[in-house]
Amino acid sequence: MSSFEVVYFAVSARAQSIRSMLSLAEVNWKNRVPQWPEEKESMPFGRLPQLNETTPEGSKFSLVESGAIERYLARKYGFLPSDNQISSKLESYALQIKDSQKAYLHHVVKSKTEESKAAMEEQFRFLFKCHEPILAASPSGHYHGNSITYPDIVLYTLYSQATKRNCGRLFNELECPHIMKLVTSMDSNKKIAYAIATVE
Amino acid sequence: MSSFEVVYFAVSARAQSIRSMLSLAEVNWKNRVPQWPEEKESMPFGRLPQLNETTPEGSKFSLVESGAIERYLARKYGFLPSDNQISSKLESYALQIKDSQKAYLHHVVKSKTEESKAAMEEQFRFLFKCHEPILAASPSGHYHGNSITYPDIVLYTLYSQATKRNCGRLFNELECPHIMKLVTSMDSNKKIAYAIATVE
Repeated sequence: MSSFEVVYFAVSARAQSIRSMLSLAEVNWKNRVPQWPEEKESMPFGRLPQLNETTPEGSKFSLVESGAIERYLARKYGFLPSDNQISSKLESYALQIKDSQKAYLHHVVKSKTEESKAAMEEQFRFLFKCHEPILAASPSGHYHGNSITYPDIVLYTLYSQATKRNCGRLFNELECPHIMKLVTSMDSNKKIAYAIATVE
Repeated sequence: MSSFEVVYFAVSARAQSIRSMLSLAEVNWKNRVPQWPEEKESMPFGRLPQLNETTPEGSKFSLVESGAIERYLARKYGFLPSDNQISSKLESYALQIKDSQKAYLHHVVKSKTEESKAAMEEQFRFLFKCHEPILAASPSGHYHGNSITYPDIVLYTLYSQATKRNCGRLFNELECPHIMKLVTSMDSNKKIAYAIATVE
């Protein structure tokens, strides 16, 4: 079985879904906080997060771009099914959740203006409107099937980030009861909690 | 064989790589410009572009989020290989190209300020620095193997968009000779040219 290194700053931001997947897959993995910006020049793409994989035979594989890393792991460990239509639909859900995440991170970390707050809230309203019917129609309460898949993980990452930064009120029983049901059920997942706790 | 409808405005922007893939795959496809915003409310995700697929048996499949649509078609028609590592690496290249495309579209369509111009130029410099060595090391001049794959298509979309809007100087022999070689070779591809000509 391969072992993995997640190279990123000691924050949640763009690495949390990656860490959660590695933890859920029960593989050998660790975080590494790089010397920054000193290391930047030595990295082929100068970008974080970076995933480094070492196979049992010692061969190496390295990947950047958080979305590409997430989908690589999701395919490898079954958080995206092999069916192209189902998998692409789940990817589109994850991308919609990521629009809210981008607006959230932009507001909370960078901009902190009334304008960025309004943009964030609009993205969350859009997310709730589109995704509540999907989850309401699912007997298991998951986006697909009876277990955790890619969009579940991305959604929970957003929820846990918002909750940690006192933006938890964005998620509430009134506007998004089925999203609340899903993220609350994932709150008790010890593997995800472990992944989060590795940096926070 | 399925037939497809690309629902989007009559511009290049976020639909051109999708149209190019459909045209390269030689499938039956057409554009449809929606009544906007009238149609928005009736669409489950209220977002464009949207891809609608109809199989020969009459079953329907619908997908939004340009990245998800592109990768769905890329997997279906062989612009992404089945090998997860190679495919994910090619996806990461495409995402890096898309960062330049986002900065380009933001500057040219929306912001038009000195600041957005500087951000765009920085993204292009980053792209050239990272991707020139990849293409220089490829005997065929393509990102992967001997033929057109996903990042080739996304790169050509950016090149053709920039060229159409008098930003062609961003691409030049001095800074990105191997990128120039690839996009110039794709300039003579009649299927891609057809896809572009459907709206411009």
